Amino acid sequence: MIDRLVIIGVGLIGGSLGLALKKAGACREVVGCGRTPLHLKKAVELGVIDRYETDIGRAAQDADMVVLAVPVGVIEASFEQLAGHLSAHTVFTDVGSTKGSVVAAAQRVFKQVPAMFVPGHPIAGTEKSGVTAATAELFQQRRVVLTPLPDTSPDALAKVRQMWKWTGAEIVETSVEHHDAVLAATSHLPHLLAYTLVDSLARMDASEEIFRFAAGGFNDFTRIAGSSPQMWHDICLANGAAILKMIEHFDKDLIQLATAIRDGDGAQILDLFTRAKTARDRFETTKVISMQERS
Amino acid sequence: MIDRLVIIGVGLIGGSLGLALKKAGACREVVGCGRTPLHLKKAVELGVIDRYETDIGRAAQDADMVVLAVPVGVIEASFEQLAGHLSAHTVFTDVGSTKGSVVAAAQRVFKQVPAMFVPGHPIAGTEKSGVTAATAELFQQRRVVLTPLPDTSPDALAKVRQMWKWTGAEIVETSVEHHDAVLAATSHLPHLLAYTLVDSLARMDASEEIFRFAAGGFNDFTRIAGSSPQMWHDICLANGAAILKMIEHFDKDLIQLATAIRDGDGAQILDLFTRAKTARDRFETTKVISMQERS
Repeated sequence: MIDRLVIIGVGLIGGSLGLALKKAGACREVVGCGRTPLHLKKAVELGVIDRYETDIGRAAQDADMVVLAVPVGVIEASFEQLAGHLSAHTVFTDVGSTKGSVVAAAQRVFKQVPAMFVPGHPIAGTEKSGVTAATAELFQQRRVVLTPLPDTSPDALAKVRQMWKWTGAEIVETSVEHHDAVLAATSHLPHLLAYTLVDSLARMDASEEIFRFAAGGFNDFTRIAGSSPQMWHDICLANGAAILKMIEHFDKDLIQLATAIRDGDGAQILDLFTRAKTARDRFETTKVISMQERS
Repeated sequence: MIDRLVIIGVGLIGGSLGLALKKAGACREVVGCGRTPLHLKKAVELGVIDRYETDIGRAAQDADMVVLAVPVGVIEASFEQLAGHLSAHTVFTDVGSTKGSVVAAAQRVFKQVPAMFVPGHPIAGTEKSGVTAATAELFQQRRVVLTPLPDTSPDALAKVRQMWKWTGAEIVETSVEHHDAVLAATSHLPHLLAYTLVDSLARMDASEEIFRFAAGGFNDFTRIAGSSPQMWHDICLANGAAILKMIEHFDKDLIQLATAIRDGDGAQILDLFTRAKTARDRFETTKVISMQERS
């Protein structure tokens, strides 16, 4: 049981966390914090939080757990507002899509990364955003990655793990660097490809016509291009090095495919597609098995 | 009413066409044709076709309408087997994802593209394939593109239009070249990007780990990489020129984004993502409106 939980940034992720923990009966009180009273009032109405504050320092008073659910681009400013307002027993964590930049920001603000801070990332976004899209089920059967540092308090880590368990998520631990490299591959790169494709087509002469001919496959493929531009802008800047490495890797493979098409090298094309289908089918199967195991 | 419909290639598309037309009561008899009696027997059992032949020439006898629902890579061989077996009144059409290559194959086999041949393409695939995936509803509210030539018989065109109308599809006419350019953009390029991404990740050292961290967005984004490798191999070879143009166009934009990330040019990144989201949201809205208009 968390006595007082403070959620800074009551959007899709922060809001869903509030709903999930309230549904699980895991908190005595959930306090929301944000800049816009109108949104926070809405969050109270929706039963996402019990009350709100607009000042981070005030909100954090006597908190047992503080969750920073703000875009990675403003996490450093949030740390600054938080500094000096945390009790010695307050555990804090974040939900940022990049972990290296968050840890670096904590280091800059607190001089050294506090033992009570547990960097975290629930892999559970959708292309929707805002508190009205929040659901208590968002984290069920999803992975939450925690990237504790050598100095992270084992007690703080255990408390953050427990919090996420209450939401129905599966908790995975890995290093900051590994998280950022893997997410660049499976999440950041796909988002950039989808954004670039849609923009590429939209800027073509016959764009209206082009979208008119688009079918179901295109719809699925580009769904993530409906995600928050600001959030993905932040991610690009926060995880630039790992993302650039992945773009380079991908681009080399794309150019190789283009060469095979230019050369009419059917065998190479068929090989690539067959390998990809096999990997994709295995991924699909693993996902289903992994879900069955848990149900 | 079509007296005798012959479907050459009873897979997802051919099978779904048979089911849709039978459900609409639009055919007296549906004859299937393929190489594998086992599949064709299954198709009879599933009510997709009434009877079958394994010889194209025999199947086409006394046909009113012949639909070539074979992969684009074997369309020329199918034309060859068909040549000399068509009555003067038999209308024939295809469902190939590329139209330039199909028209060129018809020209090679028949010396000139027959007036009774109407090149067509239902934009209705899924990543599934085979007759067991066929449904009577596959073409409902989907677009079927017909690319008649100047010499195409207006009567043949009207009959093919009518056939697709019975399936619940919306029929669109355009030129062969325009079809191939637009499909390269909205279908062929996205498939190649999905295949390349999955293969790129699968060949990385930590690939098992990478797929374990993949979430819903990745799942949607890569669904089309589960499509038939043989079919997409055929499409790459059949529409190579248009596809290469699109890859080049896309690659230029991707490199530009990479440069913006390297330079930390947040404004350019945010611009791109915002334009893409706007286009994607508009596409989503148009799709919904277009469906409502028809219902």
